[in-house]
Amino acid sequence: MNGAQTLVKTLLGAGVDVCFSNPGTSEMHFVAALDEHPDMKCVLGLHETVVTGAADGYARMAGKPAATLLHLGPGLGNGLANLHNAKRARSQVVNVVGDHATYHGHFDAPLTSDVEGIARPVSDWVRSSKTSHRVAGDAAEAIAAARQAPGHIATLILPADCAWSEATGPASPIEPPKPLAPIEAAVSTAVDWLRSGRKVAVLLGDQALMEENLELAGKISAASGCELFSPTSNRRMMRGAGRVAVERIAYPVDVALARLADFEVVLSFGADEPVAFFAYPGKPSRVFPEGCEVIPVATVRQDIPAALAAVCEGLGAQNTAAPVTELALPDAPTGAITPDAAAAVIARSLPENTIVIDEAITSGRSLDGITRGAVAHDWLQLTGGAIGGGFPLATGAATACPDRPVLALQADGSGAYSLQALWTQAREEQHVVTLIFANREYRILKGEMANVGVKTVGKNALGMLDLRRPTIGWVDLAKGFGVAGEAVESVEDLTAALTRGFAEKRPYLIEAIMP
Amino acid sequence: MNGAQTLVKTLLGAGVDVCFSNPGTSEMHFVAALDEHPDMKCVLGLHETVVTGAADGYARMAGKPAATLLHLGPGLGNGLANLHNAKRARSQVVNVVGDHATYHGHFDAPLTSDVEGIARPVSDWVRSSKTSHRVAGDAAEAIAAARQAPGHIATLILPADCAWSEATGPASPIEPPKPLAPIEAAVSTAVDWLRSGRKVAVLLGDQALMEENLELAGKISAASGCELFSPTSNRRMMRGAGRVAVERIAYPVDVALARLADFEVVLSFGADEPVAFFAYPGKPSRVFPEGCEVIPVATVRQDIPAALAAVCEGLGAQNTAAPVTELALPDAPTGAITPDAAAAVIARSLPENTIVIDEAITSGRSLDGITRGAVAHDWLQLTGGAIGGGFPLATGAATACPDRPVLALQADGSGAYSLQALWTQAREEQHVVTLIFANREYRILKGEMANVGVKTVGKNALGMLDLRRPTIGWVDLAKGFGVAGEAVESVEDLTAALTRGFAEKRPYLIEAIMP
Repeated sequence: MNGAQTLVKTLLGAGVDVCFSNPGTSEMHFVAALDEHPDMKCVLGLHETVVTGAADGYARMAGKPAATLLHLGPGLGNGLANLHNAKRARSQVVNVVGDHATYHGHFDAPLTSDVEGIARPVSDWVRSSKTSHRVAGDAAEAIAAARQAPGHIATLILPADCAWSEATGPASPIEPPKPLAPIEAAVSTAVDWLRSGRKVAVLLGDQALMEENLELAGKISAASGCELFSPTSNRRMMRGAGRVAVERIAYPVDVALARLADFEVVLSFGADEPVAFFAYPGKPSRVFPEGCEVIPVATVRQDIPAALAAVCEGLGAQNTAAPVTELALPDAPTGAITPDAAAAVIARSLPENTIVIDEAITSGRSLDGITRGAVAHDWLQLTGGAIGGGFPLATGAATACPDRPVLALQADGSGAYSLQALWTQAREEQHVVTLIFANREYRILKGEMANVGVKTVGKNALGMLDLRRPTIGWVDLAKGFGVAGEAVESVEDLTAALTRGFAEKRPYLIEAIMP
Repeated sequence: MNGAQTLVKTLLGAGVDVCFSNPGTSEMHFVAALDEHPDMKCVLGLHETVVTGAADGYARMAGKPAATLLHLGPGLGNGLANLHNAKRARSQVVNVVGDHATYHGHFDAPLTSDVEGIARPVSDWVRSSKTSHRVAGDAAEAIAAARQAPGHIATLILPADCAWSEATGPASPIEPPKPLAPIEAAVSTAVDWLRSGRKVAVLLGDQALMEENLELAGKISAASGCELFSPTSNRRMMRGAGRVAVERIAYPVDVALARLADFEVVLSFGADEPVAFFAYPGKPSRVFPEGCEVIPVATVRQDIPAALAAVCEGLGAQNTAAPVTELALPDAPTGAITPDAAAAVIARSLPENTIVIDEAITSGRSLDGITRGAVAHDWLQLTGGAIGGGFPLATGAATACPDRPVLALQADGSGAYSLQALWTQAREEQHVVTLIFANREYRILKGEMANVGVKTVGKNALGMLDLRRPTIGWVDLAKGFGVAGEAVESVEDLTAALTRGFAEKRPYLIEAIMP
């Protein structure tokens, strides 16, 4: 048994049975070892950003890590942006990055690079196996590191000779440490604040946004009058009819500042203090007002459900009814595809249990309010701000949940970063409906130009913000990657197209041309 | 005048007047500053791999750096693979990477990352500006670092507040140090070897592959009987009729070993010792035989033309006629598009002075021999083995040389990494003909499976090597990005398509479907 074979057996033994891959020469023995195990599902991406983004989407929905297979430093580099997003999502990912044989490195062949150096900024755990005998043990540690709450990026570098040389055998799974217990003082401080009658925001992230924990938060809110928020960008929110609603803090800093101006304290469960996405001249970095303290009742490393339960109990709210959302669909819009109208169509069209991937950027700013009363669904957001996450997240979510529909809400500018994922969706016959918001510009940047104080946009700048010369033909692009689709220009046609798309059991792309 | 304005003026003052860009919020002031200077040509890429690959192609042809504009760590990460290629090409590149405002960093907003850490593995020079007053001076140093022979990657990180705050003014250009003089002892050793009657290989890289230096090498070869080689992957080779021919060392390690088995010494001018691209069990890393010494007569940091001239003079070969290649076209092939037949069609179809971009991978292995007698042309290769260089290199070369035709020879698997460059070619109306070699698999990996000793390819492995499920529709993809094209299945149709493509003054894509 060689090192690569012990690696695959160790992965499978720990329940890691999906490998998103984009292999090269130095990984051929790993590919051969994967080949011996049909119970390992191998999903090919045509670009590494598809591979890492899909691993992120998979982890968010499966609650366990997939492996990735990447080819040396440049292959890892291509996957870096979506690993950044995955790290910010605190997703569980086990990267396996092939490298030159240990003795070949010092010959400085063209593909030689500092793989560890490239890995470190986007990894919580990095190791390069030193011998074939250590591959299995390293892999078991990598998996445990990835699985440790709240979820981590573990990158195992596999030199080619460690893959092809004889090794002892696979390693048993290592159980990661349990999350830390909540601190009693933090819980009682939270209870005191909630009883104080002051204006309290409860900030929910990570596990707090799962249905059963939302219910605890709902009881707390009902008993105390506090308001429930989430950060702008979240790994996964369970929401819609039958669930406790949480308000996402708005992306535009002025909107967030105005909305949060009156709060006196923030009690956070599984979320860091939300701050402005970017700094702007003369505007604050924090979005909660000065003097408003943010108290981490449970950090992401602690047992978030236990903290919520303890606060609930402290308030005596265990039997309080949580205020769950009623099914409430907006009226059918008509005419042009504006962000509001699109959000209304989406709210009305969502099948039960859809996984919504949100990289709609400016076109998605109406979604939170307008879709809140839709049927129950999951909502996955762009956690790290590295654009190009949408298509691959959809691919990964569909891999994790083949029986659930996926709706990918995709801005056109961002979509151009990772459209290769469509090919994987076609190959895997995934039930993903992609809705492209074709406003044909980097609209967010036009707004940001004003936000940073730039008043006029001239020709050279417009050339960097405008996507009309030439327009991107999304239906042609989809066809080129084997995905059927259509372009629509009215909400009536959009509604019909979504119906067609959800009826398909294959990927379908809708280009919504916006005014 | 703010920091961004001093940066743009410093770039222009040093002759850097092209900026390949993919901006985001933190670079809005830089965009605004670029906007004030219509003499700065801004070229938008839909993905950062287009941006950095185009900067590489531009530098190879222009012989001076372009700037890039990238958005924080993930934007730089997306450009990493082609920066790796650019670094291996020793291209001159000045990256400008936006970052959060200095005071915003510690709030750990979603896009926060270790930008310097991501930059370092692919940069020769990295600096983050500390204040707006230092931006111009930092930029002048970055440009000088990029321009220093043989060419370097300089990465300047520009925090948003350093861009938007008041600054003193632009900085004057800094002249980089001249290349080091050749070492006399190395020159006389080379002359001794060349006079010895032993079997000598002269290895030419970097500046040695430019026409006038090739002529010196030709004289040396004519006077001494040595053979002229180049590494497998080169920044730029000038070749074809009227020029001295150089043989590229073959990529397949067994072919290279057999060809080079008899050499007793290698005299290198501007090239490191070529080694096997990858290690294989039981095969050597070096491609020259054991005991064959590689003598660097001039490293890339030395004056390569001076070293060639000195050796030429030492041999008394100044007036020897260099053996230049005669125009010699292969016969017209017929039938299916095999690599040999495609190479013959290319040799016969090339317009004078074409810039050939070679990311043909396995389909391009016949090119060296078959196209050697074509009309004069430049040949740019994939220097770092990070695939996805082809489309962007073509974009950059066309930006540098708008009056020359560009032929991009593109493997289909590799092409899927950076097809977004087609959109830039359409927008800039570039005269680029792309020839896709559609063999519909990662053919190189099938060969490499055998090379590393894997005998059987099963279903899971085949799924990672085969691109037929679904086939990629390259003409549709091109259309989606605004580029016209056609698919062909015979060399007769390929010939006609190339004629049509070269007649266009816009980008054109030909999908050559191979058996």
